Amino acid sequence: MRKLKITLSYDGTNYVGWQTQPNGTSIQQLVQDAFREIAGIHVNVVAAGRTDAGVHAIAQVAHAEYGGDIPADGLRKALNSLLPDDIAVTQIEDAAPSFHAMRDAVGKRYLYRMVLSDGKVPLLRDRAWQMSGDLDIGAMREASRELVGRHDFESFRAAGCSSPDAICDVRSIEMAESQEFNLYLDGKGRAIDIAFEGESFLRHMVRNIVGTLVEVGQGKLTADGVKRILEQKNRQVAGICAPACGLYLVKVFY
Amino acid sequence: MRKLKITLSYDGTNYVGWQTQPNGTSIQQLVQDAFREIAGIHVNVVAAGRTDAGVHAIAQVAHAEYGGDIPADGLRKALNSLLPDDIAVTQIEDAAPSFHAMRDAVGKRYLYRMVLSDGKVPLLRDRAWQMSGDLDIGAMREASRELVGRHDFESFRAAGCSSPDAICDVRSIEMAESQEFNLYLDGKGRAIDIAFEGESFLRHMVRNIVGTLVEVGQGKLTADGVKRILEQKNRQVAGICAPACGLYLVKVFY
Repeated sequence: MRKLKITLSYDGTNYVGWQTQPNGTSIQQLVQDAFREIAGIHVNVVAAGRTDAGVHAIAQVAHAEYGGDIPADGLRKALNSLLPDDIAVTQIEDAAPSFHAMRDAVGKRYLYRMVLSDGKVPLLRDRAWQMSGDLDIGAMREASRELVGRHDFESFRAAGCSSPDAICDVRSIEMAESQEFNLYLDGKGRAIDIAFEGESFLRHMVRNIVGTLVEVGQGKLTADGVKRILEQKNRQVAGICAPACGLYLVKVFY
Repeated sequence: MRKLKITLSYDGTNYVGWQTQPNGTSIQQLVQDAFREIAGIHVNVVAAGRTDAGVHAIAQVAHAEYGGDIPADGLRKALNSLLPDDIAVTQIEDAAPSFHAMRDAVGKRYLYRMVLSDGKVPLLRDRAWQMSGDLDIGAMREASRELVGRHDFESFRAAGCSSPDAICDVRSIEMAESQEFNLYLDGKGRAIDIAFEGESFLRHMVRNIVGTLVEVGQGKLTADGVKRILEQKNRQVAGICAPACGLYLVKVFY
């Protein structure tokens, strides 16, 4: 059997997430369906991590065992011809037999995109968290420093998170004004990107951190307040969970 | 009666275009439906120009006569609360009684966005013309100069174009590599924007010019060839009509 390393990009808007679910269409299911059509048998496709409903991926990584002899790039093209336009296999490589997309991952990079605009921006719906008013980015940046490092992120994980503990090593949180949405904003707002790198993240952790940092940016919370939320290890005390549409899985490190 | 100047932004993907049609949902119809709900009567909303099915707008301009006394910005918010997320009224102003969105327009700016990438880019579907291979931008720029100025654009207009003649004054055609899609491209391609400004444009004219310039970029046609196409005044000789999803109406000048 060959072990394949598969890199995927997708727009998560129309899906229940990566993971196959009983209540809707998942990205995993469509990729496995496409594999079945090519390979003639069920092929299990295991991703580095689940992305939730509505979350996007620039370069999700998955592995699969495949017994056929179609060369990697031919397989990529065949899968793409069967997948809908909002899911693409961007690369397939033959990997070591031991390669495991989830267990071998040593880090991940996420990006959270926000748009501050008084009115809605149609061409950015499902691409960023749109909100009115302004945010104090300096205050958010200061507060984000309380979260960098190895901490117990119990306060920032979702109910139903399956991880045995909440200890995570967040390597960096960086925020910057982005110019990439300038055409769509048409001078009527600004865009903020927050990039996260870490060894691993808990369910909803990035979105819960973003929701909390936004409260800092709105002046409702201080950096000290964020520190206290972290120390309380209590899911009830953090800010709201930022919407899925602003979150992108950008890179998985091996 | 008040005369309102209404600025709109929309994602054209799900619509038959601006103009009300018997065969599907138009943007004009949804805006007029929203007005009817607020004003209690039919309000005719007249745009600076029709955009075709799938074409986007950053700042389409329209006018409407409105007998009510809701202040302009309150009306904007009320309309937005009734419109779907892919259509937004970005501004409403009270205008002179004589204001006519179409007749008073003295120019328009369009942007055409292309993505050159070997594989499809899910997060840019319906936002740019995705094609594989590379383009010679220098050759395209040179060829575009043949089209700037006052010419008979008969070769570049669609069958069924209602304009009495095909004389148009194209003020500028500018092409540039864009960095705005960098996140979504993830190093796997490049993005080219072509901006058009002119007094007026014929039906499909920008898209037919783009299709022809792409043939130049692919080495199938020269700048001289483009000049000859223009001189032939024959719809059959120009390149293909570029897909609607790459086209944006950016600004209407008054």
